[in-house]
Amino acid sequence: MSNYILTNENAIYYECNYSCDNVIFIKLGNESFFITDARYTIEAKEKVKNTEVIESSDLIKSAQEILTKEKIKEIIFDGNDFTYNKFNKLTENLKVNFTNQVNFSHLKRVIKTDDEIAILKKAAKIGRNGFERLAKYINKNGLNKKETLLHFKAVEAYKNMGKYDLSFDPIIAINENAAKPHALPTSKKLQKNDLLLVDAGVKYKRYCSDRTCTASFGDELNFSRKQKFKSKKQQKIYDLVYKAQLNAIENAKVGMKAKDIDNLTRSVIEKAGFGKYFIHSTGHGVGLDIHEHPYINSKSDVIIEDNMVFTIEPGIYLPNEFGVRIEDTIVMKNGKAVIL
Amino acid sequence: MSNYILTNENAIYYECNYSCDNVIFIKLGNESFFITDARYTIEAKEKVKNTEVIESSDLIKSAQEILTKEKIKEIIFDGNDFTYNKFNKLTENLKVNFTNQVNFSHLKRVIKTDDEIAILKKAAKIGRNGFERLAKYINKNGLNKKETLLHFKAVEAYKNMGKYDLSFDPIIAINENAAKPHALPTSKKLQKNDLLLVDAGVKYKRYCSDRTCTASFGDELNFSRKQKFKSKKQQKIYDLVYKAQLNAIENAKVGMKAKDIDNLTRSVIEKAGFGKYFIHSTGHGVGLDIHEHPYINSKSDVIIEDNMVFTIEPGIYLPNEFGVRIEDTIVMKNGKAVIL
Repeated sequence: MSNYILTNENAIYYECNYSCDNVIFIKLGNESFFITDARYTIEAKEKVKNTEVIESSDLIKSAQEILTKEKIKEIIFDGNDFTYNKFNKLTENLKVNFTNQVNFSHLKRVIKTDDEIAILKKAAKIGRNGFERLAKYINKNGLNKKETLLHFKAVEAYKNMGKYDLSFDPIIAINENAAKPHALPTSKKLQKNDLLLVDAGVKYKRYCSDRTCTASFGDELNFSRKQKFKSKKQQKIYDLVYKAQLNAIENAKVGMKAKDIDNLTRSVIEKAGFGKYFIHSTGHGVGLDIHEHPYINSKSDVIIEDNMVFTIEPGIYLPNEFGVRIEDTIVMKNGKAVIL
Repeated sequence: MSNYILTNENAIYYECNYSCDNVIFIKLGNESFFITDARYTIEAKEKVKNTEVIESSDLIKSAQEILTKEKIKEIIFDGNDFTYNKFNKLTENLKVNFTNQVNFSHLKRVIKTDDEIAILKKAAKIGRNGFERLAKYINKNGLNKKETLLHFKAVEAYKNMGKYDLSFDPIIAINENAAKPHALPTSKKLQKNDLLLVDAGVKYKRYCSDRTCTASFGDELNFSRKQKFKSKKQQKIYDLVYKAQLNAIENAKVGMKAKDIDNLTRSVIEKAGFGKYFIHSTGHGVGLDIHEHPYINSKSDVIIEDNMVFTIEPGIYLPNEFGVRIEDTIVMKNGKAVIL
């Protein structure tokens, strides 16, 4: 893959160690070009590796000029990375053969380097600290507070006085709201012995963490993996989801297909008769993007390899009652899954 | 414009009073279709107006089925609203003539209804309350605090315990950092008599507010339009930018071209010899999008009409010294500009 063109911010960061929200990146054999506007050129020149920074007020025109000047005949792009108009403007009057190769940049990033894994480990640790700060707040002040306020306090806890960006807008949901996998915060108030689901992550050096805990707000709330619920039904479902997740973490092996790992969680839940309430896939890769390859679902034949990083997050959602999801991000190391 | 297809979240909200992040909207004469996935259908059915909600796990396929079933021959789309792959998938094997009409949805929204103006007025008020909360925090605790912490506290102030979403990530910049129109917060600490630029807005019922204040952190910081700086140069530049902004607010008239309004700020700054430090346009429309039509720049021949809403925000940026920008959002009413 000698020539390619990118506009995605994270894909470009992966290529040259810097990125911004208005850039076209072109790789031509051993040469790389980072085309951006005047707002970003100073920082770009300080930070890009092995890449020429080009200042431009018309990025597409500058990209065309480079392709023409270098007499390029063939180049790869990803049709999901360009709007229809942007791609048409880029190719207008250009005698270059553009090959649409979907996800070519994502697929490069599926096996993490040891440096990336060290960063993802640190992100996971910072994320866990956020969960601890949130637990402290809830134990002191959470009783009778609305989900909207708890959500706001969660953002504070994970951002830690503005030190970190979030991987995504956190989900914080009580009882029946937790039965919606992508619940938005409501005016529902937290009461003693409620079930509380929290899904959150932070970024460290642009890499994401991702974790979901389902906890009981009993005498003292904590986000550990062992939970005691007052409701017997909640306890039963929690223990089942936990067993499903543990089965996948303990038995995932390099060489398996992604669908085999999906089956490690799904089969436990199906055997107990709750298969139809596990309404999503088992997990997704995590890296510069919060959702990336490999996708761990019931249809994927992707072979799992060492240094892949992905979530294992089975869930059971009982409409109008409650939902339980337990999610950790793992790395495949020496053939097995290790929680980051 | 009888048939059109949209994927942009705000454009679709404008059409039918509800939207989400995974939807295709189709208007065919008097019929409207809102195609979305199972996560959103319940809420969509409660909220959409005069529109049929269609649940689908493959939105594009469902869109094709509707176009085929209704025997549609012509439909308008905006090539900026689709990725290259999404548009190609949509048009595959379909005998429909797609007309690429850039910004057709944005241009519909350029004249606001009285209801929209009432909402924008409320958004502006909530935004001003955020500025007041931020000023209180800074007067009590701001001294010697880093821009990164001030930025975090600004987000808190504008979100007001999670009640409001932000129009955009606020800008908060001290002295020389304020000389960058899109400054990111640094570890620079706020000192007595510093110049502080704050650009922020909130959303109310999905409509945005947008305001920039440049203030002196003297005995007491406030975000009013009259400011007293200790530095004579800062005072001179502030007064000049203020004069330029006032000239535009007092003299903008319905029937002028957008470029005439741009000239009302620019001519004042140019006459004083600082034209080359006013490095952006005078303003932009504000509504569901934080940047929308009309754009107030030196090249636009758009005729200004009653019920247009846009910012007037001249600025002077002296590299490595400081920057001043004063921005208010105005509505054209009875032929003249009124600050919202």
